[in-house]
Amino acid sequence: MSLLLVLDLAGTFVFALSGATAGVERRLDLFGILVLSFVAGNFGGITRDLMIGAVPPAGIGDWRYLAVSLLAGVITFYRYGAVDRLRSPVLLFDAAGLALFAVSGAHKALVFGLNPLMAALLGMLTGIGGGMVRDVLLANVPTVLRADIYATAALAGAAVVVVGELLKLPPTATTIVGALLCFGLRLMALRRGWHLPVARPERSPDQQQSRD
Amino acid sequence: MSLLLVLDLAGTFVFALSGATAGVERRLDLFGILVLSFVAGNFGGITRDLMIGAVPPAGIGDWRYLAVSLLAGVITFYRYGAVDRLRSPVLLFDAAGLALFAVSGAHKALVFGLNPLMAALLGMLTGIGGGMVRDVLLANVPTVLRADIYATAALAGAAVVVVGELLKLPPTATTIVGALLCFGLRLMALRRGWHLPVARPERSPDQQQSRD
Amino acid sequence: MSLLLVLDLAGTFVFALSGATAGVERRLDLFGILVLSFVAGNFGGITRDLMIGAVPPAGIGDWRYLAVSLLAGVITFYRYGAVDRLRSPVLLFDAAGLALFAVSGAHKALVFGLNPLMAALLGMLTGIGGGMVRDVLLANVPTVLRADIYATAALAGAAVVVVGELLKLPPTATTIVGALLCFGLRLMALRRGWHLPVARPERSPDQQQSRD
Repeated sequence: MSLLLVLDLAGTFVFALSGATAGVERRLDLFGILVLSFVAGNFGGITRDLMIGAVPPAGIGDWRYLAVSLLAGVITFYRYGAVDRLRSPVLLFDAAGLALFAVSGAHKALVFGLNPLMAALLGMLTGIGGGMVRDVLLANVPTVLRADIYATAALAGAAVVVVGELLKLPPTATTIVGALLCFGLRLMALRRGWHLPVARPERSPDQQQSRD
Repeated sequence: MSLLLVLDLAGTFVFALSGATAGVERRLDLFGILVLSFVAGNFGGITRDLMIGAVPPAGIGDWRYLAVSLLAGVITFYRYGAVDRLRSPVLLFDAAGLALFAVSGAHKALVFGLNPLMAALLGMLTGIGGGMVRDVLLANVPTVLRADIYATAALAGAAVVVVGELLKLPPTATTIVGALLCFGLRLMALRRGWHLPVARPERSPDQQQSRD
Repeated sequence: MSLLLVLDLAGTFVFALSGATAGVERRLDLFGILVLSFVAGNFGGITRDLMIGAVPPAGIGDWRYLAVSLLAGVITFYRYGAVDRLRSPVLLFDAAGLALFAVSGAHKALVFGLNPLMAALLGMLTGIGGGMVRDVLLANVPTVLRADIYATAALAGAAVVVVGELLKLPPTATTIVGALLCFGLRLMALRRGWHLPVARPERSPDQQQSRD
């Protein structure tokens, strides 16, 4: 559990970095950036905890989640230039955060007695939740809905944890393999521009009619 | 309960269809469409379950909700042309979904001991939640806030269930009447362009000043 | 507790007014305005209650929250001109609502056993939640992310309540002092245009690249 907590906090930290960076680019003030850091870093985990009945959620009940979120926000605010130059490492960390949240989310859901299929789903939601709310708050369509292999990678990582549990494999090993699989898939997608097929509407999307 | 479950899953299916169709029009990839299908189909019910303390929510704890959501997404993705030609039937199913969620939501809230007024309110929220989050994720103002009789129809259907409970009428009968009332109101509004009054700001909306 | 309930309902009322006014400016119909009034007035409190395990949330389980929300919506709809001329008083009430929710949120979180730091955080979230969801539903970047001292004021007010609890000071006194502090900070920020520092991206925000 201690290993998972460390990885979980690391995931919170890198998602908070992504929220703070997006906030700086939108010229938010310091507090807006800190709010966005906290929300991006903790929304996924808080949603997961509410759904499995773990109240209060760790992101609210444990001060360390707040601390790493604010740290990420403050660093980004005062050292935006440095963070911006780190673009490649940030994407690396972001993929790591996705991986860590996916496996820790699946693991926690299993502990709270969800069935295996739903534990994998909840692991995926934990991974993608933070980026989703970050984009919604900035009035953008969430990246997860548009991007190349992102939610797919999270689901794959979570599935490894769940299948390992079904086969009674040692949890530490499956956690590491699941996280590496998600991380690797996401990195490959970024490097090589992999993506899933897109449906072709027969009408142009500009001709969208209001449907209701 | 078995009848309600079938209707509930049917409601999930048609809301998932609406999410998937909106996703195709925005040119999301396959996974983005599946995520949007799941969220549109299940957000209302999950929110309702969290508020009445039914944890884990049915949308997370019962695989059938996931299955019908994904089915709707996959059908839309591979058969978009067919779904698009079905426009009128889809609106019909959408109205049916609103009706089914409104009555099943009110019913479930009563079972969990909410007072009657709030059960009707929660039934309405269950009905409108899915479409609301679908539009927010695509960075649109939710249709429910702009459209003709939509939330009103959901509230009317939920109210029938609640009033029936107060008068000790048979639940199956009031559920069917409530669903038909909501469905009918919504269809009539669509057919005839009914809508509620709109307030006329004295200033033009283009002159909006930031209020804060 | 009775005093807190009155203040809580007053806060709900003024946030509902802000939601309704924003809805009128977007030309929503009557029901859209009522939905937005309810959501803006109650989202913060409902989120708080879900996180501390107070189920069903007061905004759903107690009809008075619904009543004051609808009252605010109806008044705004039929008397928009009057509300619009009241612009300055509305901002006054909005600051009061922020203050009341921040202190009542922190108080309630302490009662439910959260640790002091997290109780202050949750008080702040209760205060800012309603305006945040109002803006998201209208597809805007939330004011709290952009504005001068807003979340900061809420946090300061909540912190007074929490520190008072730690020092065993009388709760009524610290509640009043916390609310006045938040209210005063927010008013001063509005009057004098105070704001927190903004980070300067080295690149123009117009050159934003998609980061993922």
